[in-house]
Amino acid sequence: QETKKFKLFWNKGYHLESNDGNFKMKFGGIIQQHWSYSSQNEVIDNLFGKPNNGSKFRRIRLYNSGSIFNFISYNLQLEFAEGPTTVKDIHISIHKLPIVGKFTIGYFKEPFGLDQYNSSNDMSFIERASNIDITPGRNNGFMFSNTAFNENATWAIGTFRDTNNFGLTSFGNKYNFTGRITALPISNKEKNKFLHVGLAYSYRTPNESKYSIKSRPEAYLLTSYINTGIINQVDNVQLTGIEVALMLNYFSLQSEYIHSRVNRKDLLENYNFFGYYIELSYFITGEHKNYSKKVGYFKRVSPKSNFNATGKGIGAVEFVTRFSSADYADKSIEGGVLNDITVGINWHLNPVTKFSIDYTSAKLKAVGNSTIFQMKFQVAF
Amino acid sequence: QETKKFKLFWNKGYHLESNDGNFKMKFGGIIQQHWSYSSQNEVIDNLFGKPNNGSKFRRIRLYNSGSIFNFISYNLQLEFAEGPTTVKDIHISIHKLPIVGKFTIGYFKEPFGLDQYNSSNDMSFIERASNIDITPGRNNGFMFSNTAFNENATWAIGTFRDTNNFGLTSFGNKYNFTGRITALPISNKEKNKFLHVGLAYSYRTPNESKYSIKSRPEAYLLTSYINTGIINQVDNVQLTGIEVALMLNYFSLQSEYIHSRVNRKDLLENYNFFGYYIELSYFITGEHKNYSKKVGYFKRVSPKSNFNATGKGIGAVEFVTRFSSADYADKSIEGGVLNDITVGINWHLNPVTKFSIDYTSAKLKAVGNSTIFQMKFQVAF
Amino acid sequence: QETKKFKLFWNKGYHLESNDGNFKMKFGGIIQQHWSYSSQNEVIDNLFGKPNNGSKFRRIRLYNSGSIFNFISYNLQLEFAEGPTTVKDIHISIHKLPIVGKFTIGYFKEPFGLDQYNSSNDMSFIERASNIDITPGRNNGFMFSNTAFNENATWAIGTFRDTNNFGLTSFGNKYNFTGRITALPISNKEKNKFLHVGLAYSYRTPNESKYSIKSRPEAYLLTSYINTGIINQVDNVQLTGIEVALMLNYFSLQSEYIHSRVNRKDLLENYNFFGYYIELSYFITGEHKNYSKKVGYFKRVSPKSNFNATGKGIGAVEFVTRFSSADYADKSIEGGVLNDITVGINWHLNPVTKFSIDYTSAKLKAVGNSTIFQMKFQVAF
Repeated sequence: QETKKFKLFWNKGYHLESNDGNFKMKFGGIIQQHWSYSSQNEVIDNLFGKPNNGSKFRRIRLYNSGSIFNFISYNLQLEFAEGPTTVKDIHISIHKLPIVGKFTIGYFKEPFGLDQYNSSNDMSFIERASNIDITPGRNNGFMFSNTAFNENATWAIGTFRDTNNFGLTSFGNKYNFTGRITALPISNKEKNKFLHVGLAYSYRTPNESKYSIKSRPEAYLLTSYINTGIINQVDNVQLTGIEVALMLNYFSLQSEYIHSRVNRKDLLENYNFFGYYIELSYFITGEHKNYSKKVGYFKRVSPKSNFNATGKGIGAVEFVTRFSSADYADKSIEGGVLNDITVGINWHLNPVTKFSIDYTSAKLKAVGNSTIFQMKFQVAF
Repeated sequence: QETKKFKLFWNKGYHLESNDGNFKMKFGGIIQQHWSYSSQNEVIDNLFGKPNNGSKFRRIRLYNSGSIFNFISYNLQLEFAEGPTTVKDIHISIHKLPIVGKFTIGYFKEPFGLDQYNSSNDMSFIERASNIDITPGRNNGFMFSNTAFNENATWAIGTFRDTNNFGLTSFGNKYNFTGRITALPISNKEKNKFLHVGLAYSYRTPNESKYSIKSRPEAYLLTSYINTGIINQVDNVQLTGIEVALMLNYFSLQSEYIHSRVNRKDLLENYNFFGYYIELSYFITGEHKNYSKKVGYFKRVSPKSNFNATGKGIGAVEFVTRFSSADYADKSIEGGVLNDITVGINWHLNPVTKFSIDYTSAKLKAVGNSTIFQMKFQVAF
Repeated sequence: QETKKFKLFWNKGYHLESNDGNFKMKFGGIIQQHWSYSSQNEVIDNLFGKPNNGSKFRRIRLYNSGSIFNFISYNLQLEFAEGPTTVKDIHISIHKLPIVGKFTIGYFKEPFGLDQYNSSNDMSFIERASNIDITPGRNNGFMFSNTAFNENATWAIGTFRDTNNFGLTSFGNKYNFTGRITALPISNKEKNKFLHVGLAYSYRTPNESKYSIKSRPEAYLLTSYINTGIINQVDNVQLTGIEVALMLNYFSLQSEYIHSRVNRKDLLENYNFFGYYIELSYFITGEHKNYSKKVGYFKRVSPKSNFNATGKGIGAVEFVTRFSSADYADKSIEGGVLNDITVGINWHLNPVTKFSIDYTSAKLKAVGNSTIFQMKFQVAF
């Protein structure tokens, strides 16, 4: 009775699906190659060294995800770009539970922030805004999540422990609690009009009472310009994130504000760090961003016509611009303030191939400037 | 002429099979997450440190196995749970040879013991009995194996060299010889009545003449309570294993005795270490253990009805209990004696998903006790 | 509109292909196990230590390659045989470009040499000739390549930077330029008559101005007998390769000459190192080598009948012999001269399974001899 026939098809990736729909599997890979050419003024060069110019694999991943008996799903994703193989996602979910909807355990992204939740394949820029480093990344934990109000809202809440790139948690690590809610005050699928708002909060107890954040000027090959250094005697850290995204068909605006409140023990002084960005996107070929009401984030863009070297298709062309700011200076912590302006273009040749060019002007406040030219070629399915 | 059409189906995993049956491929993955909460008495805490409580990925694996031209088979299995990727199985077999039946080369489990041979996915408990550490694990080597008497008996004999988790053998390593025979004095498939008996033997020449064994109290997050330490000047080690398993439909009894005889050089004193366990299993939902006559071990359990959150299926529910003992003390070696009693429950939601709870009371003779509560969630296909 | 149906078939490996032919995927693996037994004369033993005798996994690989929208292709290949997982191929190509034909970026073999370009699965011997170490291997870079004259010629030219086994390039590495052209003065597919000639050139600027080459006597478990040591103050290195291959149905002859010119800075002395080999192959079962006009190298051999233990097929049997020489001694560099004579037999059981035996007599000029007996069992699909 266990033998089931499958169909095999392509839909932005390779899919296996049993004819009764109870078993689904997706197998795919990601290759992202970056090129980066930067010039820094002399003060920056002296502080952080000459920039690395050249190319690098940013992400090389294979994944296998699937759904079993229509209520259990899993995802295994491995990263090969950084030397020894690391893990990127290992999680199992149980679906269709009453009230809580979905229960997920394993190693996965904590529910915090919009651009952090968007896949690196589906971001509007070559790198996320600098303030991304304030948000928690992937960690071991478990999470409950669901949609509400006919998928016009989502919520997720979970418990996590700090975990390294191999998926290993040191015992003794403290627990962190993270939750996110999103809502769609405006939702018109026919006209592609959406207004997304979101709020996230995380209460964290750092290991060994130590905390630090640092950020690059939105170029992977550059070093971190801003850095709090290690802050000791931290009792807890409270992160807050606010998200707004407005889609008006082929135009969209997205913005986030992320705040980190570092509460130290006893009467030691507390610190506040924060960052924000605002970005615009415009598809001159008429496509639009693809919003997922199930999770409250953005999915892959589908060009109206795929690029065809010999035929008529040109793919989708998207112009983007972003201003971002990250402020890691407070009281005695002179972590620096970094402001970046980026303009870029994304050429979505087809749903799995994207070529991007970004030009960024980064300004490290009171120190100096750098200009960064980046390209990215991506195959992701 | 080489082009063959395939069918794709699910049968406790994803299968590809050519329509003529000459090519078969299986692709699958394993995710096992463990939770462990232990309390040790003060003496144990002082000796071994406070226990690690929490969750951990115990195994994260991907494998690809297949059969080519109907007489060559292969298996590649990778482990991602322990930091850098390690290998778990890499072997090629040639089948249908006269007399010897199957010839296998590569990195695989030496033919020794019943519970060691059972897949970690198909064990009755969250961890194997402590004496498992006496048995040889996976090593590089080659092996001949076959069935006899109409599949009412199996035999396997091979040569192996000690090999690390990356599949690397240091040259200079000595050869080890390991063999196993099993028989089924009682075999009634209709009534699910089987009596399995087995005998295994291994003659080993340790590297650098050093030998040691150590064992945890059947909880992966605890440290080893018993430990022979390194024994020097070892000429050879002889391992003997005796297996008995009785299946009476939904009831089964399984027991093993494993002995290690350490023969040292010249007139130095020799040592004997041993362990055994006896375990019972009872399916209240009417299923039974699945015996493989081809290899002489247990395969996956198939629930009569799969669990269905919205429907009537409940899966298979199995109660298990085990007593185990491992004695690593002999003459001047004060390695300790560990006795564990475990009661547990396995909920097989469907053939690929299992949730287990085990409660173990471990007694380190003449030292102290600990109690261990463990849970395991497993997706394996 | 993105959903496409696929067919699944076997053709020397597992293939997925969409019914419209626009999407293709191949998934496969390689397991190569080597056995090596050598005896060296006493001088060699004293110089390089006793030889390692025994077995080893030489290559264990998984790969996934594919073609997307019929103009983008990719390949991801991972190596598991050497401890931590390394990468072997990560590249993306854009096809059907005007004039340049194909553009490839990523981590892949530089276009240099014939036997280097042949897959390790498809070589005529267990190891490549010693001079292989003069040729560049896989590196990060980009390349343009195409065929010409109705596929009777090929060319490839690219820029590369020295890259480690994890695919990581240190920034600061210098650029290298490598190109290759091949032609077929004789090309008769019906009669399997081909004359292949090729020329390759590489201009290299070594990192830190250092250069060295060393080579084993064509046995993986032996150490390098010849070694230039590190040459300092190198301004540039120019590599030249000449290839000839003649196929007369089941007979073939193949030869390469590879030269390395090391130009040092200022008035420091320059060095010339070189190597060559000539090899013969003869299929007593009537098969022939499989030449690829698209790339100008050899592909997998297809036996006329596959080996069948119970039936009549015997596979393909190929006798091979090779003389190779590598001269790493010039002026003050006493790197040594190594001459190897090998005779061997390859039994291609079927297109994915090969068993090889090679017997090599290696002579390190003015020092001593060794004799090497090697076997290789390979499953590659």
